[in-house]
Amino acid sequence: MTAIFLASDHAGCQLKAEVAAYLTQAGHEVTDLGTDGSASVDYPDFGYKLAAALKDRAEARGIAICGSGIGISIAANRYSWIRAALVHDLTNARLCREHNDANVLALGERVVGAVQAIDCVQAFLDTPFAGGRHQKRIDKLSNPKLES
Amino acid sequence: MTAIFLASDHAGCQLKAEVAAYLTQAGHEVTDLGTDGSASVDYPDFGYKLAAALKDRAEARGIAICGSGIGISIAANRYSWIRAALVHDLTNARLCREHNDANVLALGERVVGAVQAIDCVQAFLDTPFAGGRHQKRIDKLSNPKLES
Repeated sequence: MTAIFLASDHAGCQLKAEVAAYLTQAGHEVTDLGTDGSASVDYPDFGYKLAAALKDRAEARGIAICGSGIGISIAANRYSWIRAALVHDLTNARLCREHNDANVLALGERVVGAVQAIDCVQAFLDTPFAGGRHQKRIDKLSNPKLES
Repeated sequence: MTAIFLASDHAGCQLKAEVAAYLTQAGHEVTDLGTDGSASVDYPDFGYKLAAALKDRAEARGIAICGSGIGISIAANRYSWIRAALVHDLTNARLCREHNDANVLALGERVVGAVQAIDCVQAFLDTPFAGGRHQKRIDKLSNPKLES
C-alpha cells in the first residue's frame, strides 16, 4: 500500500473527500493536508504544503485538487522533486506515469466528474513508470536549468 | 498583436507548425524556439528554453507542446514567472486566463486534435485575467515558499 497525501483548496474539497474515502477503503495510508470546508483559501498554499510533504519521499504519492486543477498543478510544480500531471481522463492518467513518472495527480473538481476522477486516481496508482528513454528527461526535470 | 513564443519536443512539432501558421496569419509576432523535425529530443530542454524567452516579458505569451503536454508543462512551471496551463478544451483555456493569468498554454499533440487545439489557442489569447481575489494567488505563485 502507498502513502498518499491529499491537498486541495475550497473548490476541490468535496472531490478530495471522495478520493480520500476511496483510497482509505482500498487500504492506502492517506494523509489529508486540507483544506477542510468551504471557506475561501489560496490554492498555492496547499500546492506548497503538498510539495513539502513529498520532499525526500520518492515512494509517496500526492493528489492535488482545485476548481480546474490548473492553479494547484502550477504551484506544486514549482519544486524540482514534484512531477504534477493535470489529468482529465484515463489515457493521460496512464501516460503521466509511463512517460513522466508523475508523483502528483492534479484534478479539477469543477471540470471532471467524481467517477472519472477516481478512475484516474486508480490508473495513476496502478501504472508503472516505463523508464528507458524517459529516465533522462525525468533527470532533467529534477535539475531545471535555463538555456539561453 | 502579441509576441508569442512556441516550443515543443519532436512529438509536438506538427501541431506547433499548425499553430505557428495560424498565429502568423492572424498577425502575431511568432518566434519558434524549436524543435524542428522528428529527431528525438528531451521536452525539458524546450520547456526551459520557453521559460528563458519569457523572463521579464510579462506581455509575451508562450505555447508549449509535447505528446501529452504533461512533461513540457511540468518543465516550464519550474520557473516562478511561468504559469503554464495544460489544457484540452475551451472551458479550461478560458479558465486558465480568467483565474490563473496563465502566460503559457500547454497542449498535447497526441491527445487533442488540431482544430480543438487552435480553438484553445484563440481563447487563451482572447480571454482577459479576472483579477480581484485571484491576484493574491498569482502573487503567491510568483513567490513559492514551502510550508511545513
